[in-house]
Amino acid sequence: MLWVGIDVGGMSIKGGLVNAKGKILLSESVTTQPQAPQEETIGVIAELSARLIENAEETVGGVGIGIPGTIDAKRGVVVYANNIRFENVPMAASVSERLGGLRVEIGNDANCAALGEVRFGSGKGYENAVFVTLGTGVGSGIVLDGTVYEGRAGAGAEAGHMVICSDGECCTCGRKGCWEAYASATALIRMTKRALEAHPESKMAEFAQNEGKVSGKTAFLAARAGDTAGLEVVAAYENYVAEGLVNLVNIFRPEILLIGGGVSHEGAYFIDALQKIVDARSYGGARNPRVEVKAATLGNAAGILGAAALVI
Amino acid sequence: MLWVGIDVGGMSIKGGLVNAKGKILLSESVTTQPQAPQEETIGVIAELSARLIENAEETVGGVGIGIPGTIDAKRGVVVYANNIRFENVPMAASVSERLGGLRVEIGNDANCAALGEVRFGSGKGYENAVFVTLGTGVGSGIVLDGTVYEGRAGAGAEAGHMVICSDGECCTCGRKGCWEAYASATALIRMTKRALEAHPESKMAEFAQNEGKVSGKTAFLAARAGDTAGLEVVAAYENYVAEGLVNLVNIFRPEILLIGGGVSHEGAYFIDALQKIVDARSYGGARNPRVEVKAATLGNAAGILGAAALVI
Repeated sequence: MLWVGIDVGGMSIKGGLVNAKGKILLSESVTTQPQAPQEETIGVIAELSARLIENAEETVGGVGIGIPGTIDAKRGVVVYANNIRFENVPMAASVSERLGGLRVEIGNDANCAALGEVRFGSGKGYENAVFVTLGTGVGSGIVLDGTVYEGRAGAGAEAGHMVICSDGECCTCGRKGCWEAYASATALIRMTKRALEAHPESKMAEFAQNEGKVSGKTAFLAARAGDTAGLEVVAAYENYVAEGLVNLVNIFRPEILLIGGGVSHEGAYFIDALQKIVDARSYGGARNPRVEVKAATLGNAAGILGAAALVI
Repeated sequence: MLWVGIDVGGMSIKGGLVNAKGKILLSESVTTQPQAPQEETIGVIAELSARLIENAEETVGGVGIGIPGTIDAKRGVVVYANNIRFENVPMAASVSERLGGLRVEIGNDANCAALGEVRFGSGKGYENAVFVTLGTGVGSGIVLDGTVYEGRAGAGAEAGHMVICSDGECCTCGRKGCWEAYASATALIRMTKRALEAHPESKMAEFAQNEGKVSGKTAFLAARAGDTAGLEVVAAYENYVAEGLVNLVNIFRPEILLIGGGVSHEGAYFIDALQKIVDARSYGGARNPRVEVKAATLGNAAGILGAAALVI
């Protein structure tokens, strides 16, 4: 049997035909039309699914759809998705209807990615995992006993909006001091720019010039080259990321913490530093079970695979 | 059928015979002997249970025991309990053996209290609740789908050790800036003392003198009397308590937040202020389901009732 995974993004809607081992056998992408009416977007998703099903060489058991926003997975309703302008849309039922009653499940995209990593990626074999993406924002997905924990009406699992610095930096959500405002790539870039102003002699200036901009890589490049200001920025950033991770350890004590998003490509240099802080600061120290920190491995495929995992 | 609930505290071990409605029909208390060997303490708990069972007018279905510390409830093992000096003790099996094989379950005391409130107290009728005790420290119990979530090997649900002020006040756990270091009664007393030093003219001085000490009530008494410094302390304290509560809303989005511990006796004056901040700052605002803040109602009985709820 095969399954369809659909990853609804702000730029494109990606679909893939997935087997039980988490291999994408066929994929297709269409451009997102954020201004299109809801019915049209649902039609595009159903048609993309139908084309993949047509080309499947085995029976298709269902369609899973991952969408950024507040998703009430149990009821199959998109409560609110800013990038496709959906509000209270019973998407699962609507798509299923267009596919002759085929099973359709929907979920928040970060939750899907977490599920994908646990089923097919770096979290394989673990039943309890917290997945965190460090990107423009900080997304999180929580897997408990092998299933996604999303909170009432899908409005939980927003660990990015956990305050770690009360009255600190302004967050997009309206609060001050959220983890997202310190641990996102956006925050890292802000910290890098501020350090560059204070230390124009830093190697960061050179790396930024080469890339044409200050990016999430700038401070890491400088730190790896031994630059003092770069090392300071990276240490401060790692500390903030780890503060939130240790909080999640103390709350969930999962088996594993999975780190995704662009910054996770810094690899062992970054992940090992986080592991060290998590080991040192988790409640109860060595008396309590150690929580491993690992980089997520599915990358862009996590969206399709995680969505498919909703129905596999 | 009846059940036995045992609440192991640092000062006393309390036991009660509980019915299915959460009424304590009979109770007894013995003094804790912290220096006693493990076998002796287990014997005391088993004997206390046996006496209650003997006096029961119905069959007793099992014994539940709540213990402060890290408890691996699934395996029935006390991983670490500082106040009775237990480390890796298979307490459930040992007590059961002494009671002729009767069913015995153990759990962390804060987790038990949470379960007690959900079954018989202010959380009755709710399946998803986060319970927080504001006492010497900040304890937390998490109930998801009607059962206690304790994390791997019982080492989760330590929301008191979630950092809300990175690099802030020192916490007993070794981290800096934990919620416990801002939201416990201990923290409130520290804040009150500091404010008294800065504002010796405050009405707090008078209230402290009447009580013979600065307590968790001092600032609240002054605030209720309109004292400016007292109002400031209470507002700051409420803000810190709410920071953690909003974090827990964004992570769990439960139906209800239950507040226990001495400070919760401030009643609506305190609870309403927390509700206001939780409503204003929770992620997604009014678009997401509202989380109600309520004072816990079982008080000291929560320990016995919650322990009994492990087996009811």
